[in-house]
Amino acid sequence: MSEKIFSRASGKKAKANDFVMADIDFAMAHDGTSVLAVRAFREMEEERVWNPEKIVIPFDHLTPANTDTTAALQHDIRGWIKDQGIKNFYDIGEGICHQLLPENGFALPGKLVVGADSHSCTYGAFGAFGTGVGATDMAEIFASGKLWFKVPESIKITAEGKFNKGIYAKDLTLKIIGTLGIAGATYKAAEFYGSTIESLSISGRMTLCNMAIEMGAKTGIVPPDSTTFDFLKDIAVEDYEPVYADEDAAYSKEYDFDTNELEPQIAIPHQVDNVSDISDIKPTKLDQAFIGTCTNGRLEDLEVAASILKGEKVAIRTIVVPASRNVLIEAIRKGTIETLLEAGVTIGSPGCGPCLGGHMGVIGKGEVCISTANRNFKGRMGTGGYIYLASPATAAASALTGEITDPREI
Amino acid sequence: MSEKIFSRASGKKAKANDFVMADIDFAMAHDGTSVLAVRAFREMEEERVWNPEKIVIPFDHLTPANTDTTAALQHDIRGWIKDQGIKNFYDIGEGICHQLLPENGFALPGKLVVGADSHSCTYGAFGAFGTGVGATDMAEIFASGKLWFKVPESIKITAEGKFNKGIYAKDLTLKIIGTLGIAGATYKAAEFYGSTIESLSISGRMTLCNMAIEMGAKTGIVPPDSTTFDFLKDIAVEDYEPVYADEDAAYSKEYDFDTNELEPQIAIPHQVDNVSDISDIKPTKLDQAFIGTCTNGRLEDLEVAASILKGEKVAIRTIVVPASRNVLIEAIRKGTIETLLEAGVTIGSPGCGPCLGGHMGVIGKGEVCISTANRNFKGRMGTGGYIYLASPATAAASALTGEITDPREI
Repeated sequence: MSEKIFSRASGKKAKANDFVMADIDFAMAHDGTSVLAVRAFREMEEERVWNPEKIVIPFDHLTPANTDTTAALQHDIRGWIKDQGIKNFYDIGEGICHQLLPENGFALPGKLVVGADSHSCTYGAFGAFGTGVGATDMAEIFASGKLWFKVPESIKITAEGKFNKGIYAKDLTLKIIGTLGIAGATYKAAEFYGSTIESLSISGRMTLCNMAIEMGAKTGIVPPDSTTFDFLKDIAVEDYEPVYADEDAAYSKEYDFDTNELEPQIAIPHQVDNVSDISDIKPTKLDQAFIGTCTNGRLEDLEVAASILKGEKVAIRTIVVPASRNVLIEAIRKGTIETLLEAGVTIGSPGCGPCLGGHMGVIGKGEVCISTANRNFKGRMGTGGYIYLASPATAAASALTGEITDPREI
Repeated sequence: MSEKIFSRASGKKAKANDFVMADIDFAMAHDGTSVLAVRAFREMEEERVWNPEKIVIPFDHLTPANTDTTAALQHDIRGWIKDQGIKNFYDIGEGICHQLLPENGFALPGKLVVGADSHSCTYGAFGAFGTGVGATDMAEIFASGKLWFKVPESIKITAEGKFNKGIYAKDLTLKIIGTLGIAGATYKAAEFYGSTIESLSISGRMTLCNMAIEMGAKTGIVPPDSTTFDFLKDIAVEDYEPVYADEDAAYSKEYDFDTNELEPQIAIPHQVDNVSDISDIKPTKLDQAFIGTCTNGRLEDLEVAASILKGEKVAIRTIVVPASRNVLIEAIRKGTIETLLEAGVTIGSPGCGPCLGGHMGVIGKGEVCISTANRNFKGRMGTGGYIYLASPATAAASALTGEITDPREI
């Protein structure tokens, strides 16, 4: 799939390990990285971006602004966006970049979508080649619309079987990362196949592809199917051309997972691949639960949490941050937010929330948080804190008891 | 009224300018001031608070935690609260102290309610003597339940007339402060009378009393009436004894306001008493609108804003922060939050929001914000920013146009 996308994007037959100059279909930078990308763009003494229609800038990392420094930087970028005629700008309260690009038709089958954020691999859920680049590379894309790539080799990850009750895409994702390790897929394109993957919702596929970078992958890709096309029909987008792997496509490595007996998975601090079955986790007291992020802040994630918390009261401080304005509005209409609020949950405004430790629920020294995010690196949510990664179901069940809890036991 | 409250609280006939030792009925500290009060309490080598039932601690100023330092301080205070057996603790997401004390029956007619926060005068809306003290004084209250006061002289502020369309309690409040000035009521108890005051809802009375400190008053008091008693009946509180001024009560000064011709009022940066009729304000471009705080974050404030924003889109970033979980849940049930979200508003989690410049919408250098809060001091919402204070109606109308706008013209 990657070779086909890079062949189209570079205008020449591209094979794994080739270096190609590719046309970028859509380029994304958020409030954090746009500051750096725009600075580099200005230093290049470029005047106009190559194509304002193809640049998408969501403000999500520190929104609403957490400090006057942040506010002043965002103010400057808003001015630049206006000057450049960039219409695809999403200001505070709209949501997370990796949610907004899909919702607004920028994550499409066969497209090369590059973001100045490491979790841009999320767009692979739609059969795009989505990948993250540094802010300086993004400045080059702003200027030329092009970027050099080494075409990655591909690996094939197949998951067969059905999830038991209480098991979700996040558990499979953590299981895969735990198995391959944080460098297990370095600079590879991970293609996902099998009955489990086919049965995943768009939201579940996004969870899976979102974390491909956590095993080092350049991207994660799910072949587009009726689930994909139904989603794209709902948002009235038609301008795309799916690509699929040839039947005899070569993979540098293949992995198989059986999901019939999968347990809830937990990533233990401070590495994402330090993954364990929940039954092997020793009793762990928590200070905070956090449900949200580009990994697990979508409607079905909030609904799973609400189904567990309905009529109960959380035992620890519990923060839910919807991934976008649309998610929040839908969750209000369905009564999900009211259920969460009545259970004692704090709802944050759409965006990245406390995931990166910038605001809205940072943890203190020695505090322990169960989180549905994608990273549990040391200090990520606050210096001296401990982050356990899990599914929204496990996080919600744990919020009820105040310690890490198997959602199948609630 | 103040003499009667201090007579009861001190157990002896108290006259204006007497020094009395008074029993505190309820004592409040929030996350910001409890850190300092508990530090002082520990330095006093006291072991137990005088009465854990009478201490109320809401976390509202920086919640959810904005930094790991904040989180660690809050963690420590949570432990102290638990150790001391303080049950009236409201953690993140519950709301603003000055909203939670009334909602939970701690702001009652005739009571002496002292908070480690300057806007504790809000409780006067219920006929209490509510006043703010420093954190060290609060430590003394924690230890003994008592504090020295000089009984204030009283002033009488009478407002007669009806508000025209588009005019609210906040406009009257700003008019009074603009007229008396920031030191116009220094260390006085301001009692409010007249047909305008009698017609104010509980929410409007809270707006009025909340800002008494902005003219230097020790407190602002509205005599309890059927509006007060209906509110208290709704929250099922009966244990209080209203006090009223004698017919021949002496006031050190009296002021009269005619509200029939009142215009929307604006407090211009950087002083709260720099108040102007909106018709005299020169065109003023805005970067942000903020509706919330202990002054104007209640259900009827959100409803007024929603009625103006319904079916429209805001032109600037607009942040609405409900004053409490109850306010948020009610506003969701009534469709108010959905209306606001569809208009492009960002909803923050209940608490003080960006009012004090700590997070959730801090403004940058040179940025201009219209706010429903109570203070427009230089730098309060971010260094180099400009804050115009107004009613929720004026803030909402201004959010639609991107400049200061008369809500009567929308």
